Amino acid sequence: MSGSVGPEGVLMAGVLYGVGLGPGDPELVTLKAARLIGAAEVLAYPALAGAASFARSIAAGLIPAGAEEIVMEMPMTEARGPAQVAYDAGAARIAAVLEGGRDVVCLCEGDPFFYGSFMYLFARLSERFAVEVVPGVTSVTACAARAGVPLVARNERLEVLPGTLPEDELAARIGGAEAVAVMKVGRHLGKIRRVLAGLGLEGRAVYVERATLREEVVLPLAQAPEAAPYFSMILVTKGGDPWL
Amino acid sequence: MSGSVGPEGVLMAGVLYGVGLGPGDPELVTLKAARLIGAAEVLAYPALAGAASFARSIAAGLIPAGAEEIVMEMPMTEARGPAQVAYDAGAARIAAVLEGGRDVVCLCEGDPFFYGSFMYLFARLSERFAVEVVPGVTSVTACAARAGVPLVARNERLEVLPGTLPEDELAARIGGAEAVAVMKVGRHLGKIRRVLAGLGLEGRAVYVERATLREEVVLPLAQAPEAAPYFSMILVTKGGDPWL
Repeated sequence: MSGSVGPEGVLMAGVLYGVGLGPGDPELVTLKAARLIGAAEVLAYPALAGAASFARSIAAGLIPAGAEEIVMEMPMTEARGPAQVAYDAGAARIAAVLEGGRDVVCLCEGDPFFYGSFMYLFARLSERFAVEVVPGVTSVTACAARAGVPLVARNERLEVLPGTLPEDELAARIGGAEAVAVMKVGRHLGKIRRVLAGLGLEGRAVYVERATLREEVVLPLAQAPEAAPYFSMILVTKGGDPWL
Repeated sequence: MSGSVGPEGVLMAGVLYGVGLGPGDPELVTLKAARLIGAAEVLAYPALAGAASFARSIAAGLIPAGAEEIVMEMPMTEARGPAQVAYDAGAARIAAVLEGGRDVVCLCEGDPFFYGSFMYLFARLSERFAVEVVPGVTSVTACAARAGVPLVARNERLEVLPGTLPEDELAARIGGAEAVAVMKVGRHLGKIRRVLAGLGLEGRAVYVERATLREEVVLPLAQAPEAAPYFSMILVTKGGDPWL
């Protein structure tokens, strides 16, 4: 995993790996991700300013002693500008390592291309460097597994919606869907509850918080807490397929 | 992983594990799935009549010598009745093992609750036996990773649609979507092409066949072959998020 010398004696740039780590249980990392992390000389990951990195915590048991770690400190704000500045700086540090001929393994909770912060590095670096993306288990199927809720079969459709959508749009989309995963519930829980109650679907909704982690919570939506963390999800299935 | 004796000396029934194996590359199996398969006394999996089981082929390198294998032969038909009979028979064989106090590890390509055949066993057995579902990497994010197509970020929505939907419904749903994964393309490729051309989206569509396998094909839709296998997918993103 370090730089090689090309046919004309020129140092070859390193490869950027975007590695999905799954929903949180370290055992839900793939064999490929575990191999890449275990052999990494340089790792990179985001961390909210002043907090531990969730991605790093999932991979902690796999990281070799002595690996170099590039921590991208992300500002605690929903404004876009400061995050862009942080990704610009992180991409520049990663690019310097790649140009020096060493690979960089970027740690991503969940899947890199599914609401993953790696997409911001991919946009900045994929035209200049070789990138390999290693997919991971998403929170959607992890929540379904933990809740015992089969999602979609045969000719059914699945909609993945962020809880941040406006109330009327959420109502229209959930009303027309067969199976729904509402992501990023957090402070939108009250709005989502109202939408589901209005559609008569509260009884078919399951609330899942921090799926596959020790602190996991799985409850019928009616019993969910008043305040939900960012890493929470609501699954709604309408039982269209009788399965049997 | 074999049956234990409960507090009153009664033989405890075994546990049914529904284990997702990911899209095909054996390295995209999770550490948990690998551990469960490696310790299994009894495995179960579906196979199309007369053909090798795709699920078993993904897990082949992990299966212990001497493990008992329950093969559920699935009829080569889209009619529902014969498949139901096959799942009834498979569930009965699995139930007999569980009742005898031994665990059964059921192998599922992709994720068990995402268009997975395990859902039919879950429907038949989950009320009588303890079931643990281990999520896997889905073909949706595997195709995105292989195609280099970021799917959704921030407040974007994702629709997962089976290619079997009627042409007008596909057109309406893709037209209103931000990011789309069309599954089960197979013999519906021509229809999906017409829909995307009609929406002016052919240039934003990527065709992926047998993602992460040696025979993988990734092409802009315009260059896709005339005939697509069942395990193929079309990803359409509209570039709503500028990423940078």
